Amino acid sequence: MRLVRFEAEGHVRFGHLEGDTVVPVAGDSFIDALEGREKGAPLALSVVRLLAPVPRPRKILGIGVNYAAHAAESVSFINTAKPEVQKWFNKQATAVNGPYDPVHLPRVSSQLDYEGELVAVIGKHGRHVPAERAMEIVAGFCIGCDYSVRDWQKASQTMIMGKGFDTHAPFGPALVTPDELGDISDLEIRSFVNGELRQSGRPRDMIHDVGAQIAHLTAAFTLEPGDVIFTGTPAGVGAGFDPPKWLKAGDRVRIEIDRLGHIENAIVPEPDTMRIG
Amino acid sequence: MRLVRFEAEGHVRFGHLEGDTVVPVAGDSFIDALEGREKGAPLALSVVRLLAPVPRPRKILGIGVNYAAHAAESVSFINTAKPEVQKWFNKQATAVNGPYDPVHLPRVSSQLDYEGELVAVIGKHGRHVPAERAMEIVAGFCIGCDYSVRDWQKASQTMIMGKGFDTHAPFGPALVTPDELGDISDLEIRSFVNGELRQSGRPRDMIHDVGAQIAHLTAAFTLEPGDVIFTGTPAGVGAGFDPPKWLKAGDRVRIEIDRLGHIENAIVPEPDTMRIG
Repeated sequence: MRLVRFEAEGHVRFGHLEGDTVVPVAGDSFIDALEGREKGAPLALSVVRLLAPVPRPRKILGIGVNYAAHAAESVSFINTAKPEVQKWFNKQATAVNGPYDPVHLPRVSSQLDYEGELVAVIGKHGRHVPAERAMEIVAGFCIGCDYSVRDWQKASQTMIMGKGFDTHAPFGPALVTPDELGDISDLEIRSFVNGELRQSGRPRDMIHDVGAQIAHLTAAFTLEPGDVIFTGTPAGVGAGFDPPKWLKAGDRVRIEIDRLGHIENAIVPEPDTMRIG
Repeated sequence: MRLVRFEAEGHVRFGHLEGDTVVPVAGDSFIDALEGREKGAPLALSVVRLLAPVPRPRKILGIGVNYAAHAAESVSFINTAKPEVQKWFNKQATAVNGPYDPVHLPRVSSQLDYEGELVAVIGKHGRHVPAERAMEIVAGFCIGCDYSVRDWQKASQTMIMGKGFDTHAPFGPALVTPDELGDISDLEIRSFVNGELRQSGRPRDMIHDVGAQIAHLTAAFTLEPGDVIFTGTPAGVGAGFDPPKWLKAGDRVRIEIDRLGHIENAIVPEPDTMRIG
């Protein structure tokens, strides 16, 4: 099953993606929607706006330097060797963004970078989950881009400020269930900036695979339905070039993963967003 | 106003704390409840169970090494000098705990430590909020303990795994609004373990005050109603002693702050909590 969340005619609903058609389903949460009955007439994909499949995750977790080649290129900007212990950070709930929506170039930095990633969405509660049973709590997979503001990331060892800017966690386009997706280890992840291939890699090259990630996280805390895990990025980020290739307004960043489709976001200047109240 | 969330007779509600009495108020969220009309007969404080005033924050943010004396004692266990840039981490939403409920000694560590803190709860949206207007988005203050698992915290530069264990973010007992609380800079924070005073400090000694914290956070992302900020801990944590004074099962940790009351949590062995589904 390919579950989507979408807006059409002013309403936000869940649906099943079937080819170029979206079939609306009943349910107010993605968990309900995964089991939801079809409800309403099918819509052409071209007339809906796809949104992030989980609107407001309680946790968005990301793992740093989880592909060996990316670990090597990262030494220059996060001062870290290949980590034997998993290196986790949070992105903030307010960073969630749609798979085709604009991403903000921050007012406070010009060092915006992309990290194309396989994203796992949790479907059941899990605590102390052994690695070999980890897939039992995964509802499905999709594509994400872990936008990173490198000077803010470097300024503090904890990295979270540079990872948490508004709009910097687009993911989608559809949550694809494990039974439909099959083995994930060979799915190729490709990132493009303005059509130029920058990153490619496959989950089989992860230092810590998804099972190991879930085992580690749940040794400390409970994962819950709707929690979102960014599983790491392959080599080829902008910070790894000399000189670095920072994103600029007008760039288009496209992430593709085999059998998951693609997301594509335009980089735009952050609007004048001072807000109090 | 002193807003509490409480359980009595099997129901969870909000109320106003007036002396030793809780007056139930209408409202399903703490924002509603802040303006809620009184509804129902007053209850004696002794017959209710107080809960964390915000049940499921979207963000729980904590600032590291924010008092100079604590920065000095922290060099040994987080390898950091006094930070010129604010050092932020997340605690996970699943870490929320009541002000008088048990706190788990993890199965995977014996290095459990306390950090008594002033906690700010956000009441309005804020983005790019100047420090001098920060209080406009603060709904109120309460007391928290930022329990920290030091070996897990040290194992990764990002610290979040050691900060995010289930039950490790108790806060309460009441959300006290700024108009009732007045100036916070002189409120004394005191932490006790089994009656022994371990920490004391006052917000006036923060390296980065609450206004500076909110200005920094909102330069990157939007703060929302219900977001929770742990504003830093004074010197005297267990890790700062030689040898370290780790918490053990049976210990009682009490945090007091002038005019905010106290919280007190018993340390208990983590129950056998493997959970899948």
